Amino acid sequence: MRDLARAARLLAVNGATVRKQGDFAQIIDAIAAHGIGGIAPWRDQLAECGLKEAAKRIAGHGLIATGVCRAGLFTNEGREKFQAVLDENRRAIDEAQALDARCLIMVGGGLEPGSRDLAGARSLVRDGLAALLPHARAAKIPLAIEPLHPMYAADRSCINSMKQANDLCDALGPGAAIAVDVYHTWWDPDLERQIKRAGKERIVAFHISDWLVPTTDLLLDRGMMGDGVIDIRNIRGWVEAAGFDGLCEAEIFSERNWWRRPMDEVLGTCVQRFTTVC
Amino acid sequence: MRDLARAARLLAVNGATVRKQGDFAQIIDAIAAHGIGGIAPWRDQLAECGLKEAAKRIAGHGLIATGVCRAGLFTNEGREKFQAVLDENRRAIDEAQALDARCLIMVGGGLEPGSRDLAGARSLVRDGLAALLPHARAAKIPLAIEPLHPMYAADRSCINSMKQANDLCDALGPGAAIAVDVYHTWWDPDLERQIKRAGKERIVAFHISDWLVPTTDLLLDRGMMGDGVIDIRNIRGWVEAAGFDGLCEAEIFSERNWWRRPMDEVLGTCVQRFTTVC
Repeated sequence: MRDLARAARLLAVNGATVRKQGDFAQIIDAIAAHGIGGIAPWRDQLAECGLKEAAKRIAGHGLIATGVCRAGLFTNEGREKFQAVLDENRRAIDEAQALDARCLIMVGGGLEPGSRDLAGARSLVRDGLAALLPHARAAKIPLAIEPLHPMYAADRSCINSMKQANDLCDALGPGAAIAVDVYHTWWDPDLERQIKRAGKERIVAFHISDWLVPTTDLLLDRGMMGDGVIDIRNIRGWVEAAGFDGLCEAEIFSERNWWRRPMDEVLGTCVQRFTTVC
Repeated sequence: MRDLARAARLLAVNGATVRKQGDFAQIIDAIAAHGIGGIAPWRDQLAECGLKEAAKRIAGHGLIATGVCRAGLFTNEGREKFQAVLDENRRAIDEAQALDARCLIMVGGGLEPGSRDLAGARSLVRDGLAALLPHARAAKIPLAIEPLHPMYAADRSCINSMKQANDLCDALGPGAAIAVDVYHTWWDPDLERQIKRAGKERIVAFHISDWLVPTTDLLLDRGMMGDGVIDIRNIRGWVEAAGFDGLCEAEIFSERNWWRRPMDEVLGTCVQRFTTVC
């Protein structure tokens, strides 16, 4: 297991963590100024900054793009719009390629409005990933299936466990990969085993934040590492034992706390916590 | 699969569903007046009404006590208070026996304050259940392990899947049983298989409500059957195929909606939805 004590370069920060505190060019510069090694932009941030400008600025600072957030969302609009959703996903793959990103983060999508067919939604996610894989392989961008916490099964992703992600990878073959996020998976009794099963080849991203007690909002109340109950170091140990040697990406959506603080304070805290509690 | 169209007697209502609308004696009478077949009291409601009075009133109406809520909670106070927690659990078993209840609902408990040791908490739950089983067997009260949604892993229960509940039952032997609640388990890709694995012997309670989109509170925003995205009938089909032939218990914590409506409206709606959408 790697020693993080002086290893800010092993930390990446997700663009959403400080999305309220600046435009994306400012965010890139601030992350670099803190000695952080990587960044994961959201597509709206890339659009706002301009893809070429973002790519140039990220590369200019020597930052690694640990992933682009996010694509997938195959299900929410139903089968009629499936082709349009696939086209949008292909554009996301191209953006990830332009940034030389380690992966494209894939979120399944939940239930189509009015539907209760969870099995059908899961089947549509598999079909969508399969349809995208030729384009992703050609671009050399792994499609990182990110299992989301079961509390998002209805509206954000019907892929809710590492086992599902591994089963999808088994079915889909090369190019299908996994993003492990401690926030979504820490509760899973099967987590250690499924991380081992995924192994070095599949695990292309590792996201960190913390589960607060109490949690006051299902989406926007994530905690800074160390402020909650997740044994992040334990899970990082499993991921690294499986062979993962990439950056750990801090992804914190925090309406009531971190989004209200100055960018430098948030990034400084990310580094401080990463090097002490993770 | 049973036809519910005229089967209000196959419905039970959990005491918490209308806990704001009356004292427990009133709740018992109202549930009976609606032709509902069963009731599941919370322990604070039994204490308020008096156990003997509650038992007499429930039996007098010919209601089935589908379960007593709730016991367990082995972990939240740590190992030091473990014996006191066991004693409290034994009193809960006695109360369930006094009501001739079908089971005692067991909720694991989450993490001890300050702890991140989820595996340790899970181990303590197993120890607690094992310690209680002799008393439960003597009282002929099944200890119904209720897996709670993973969003409660930190503070309410570290038992979060049907697979965990089945594994516990395997380890604990006779007297250990399972309560299946659609709200907690609907997202689980392994649900059908684990219900089948549990079978008639283990499934001693079946709880219904619905998952709202959006859900605005992690604890107190459950939906009335039919108002959310859970395919309740599908899950009921699995449970009944496994052999369950007990009552379906409506358990709805709804701060913003149902707790603010008159008791008769809530109970009438439970019956109407039960006989049409479940």
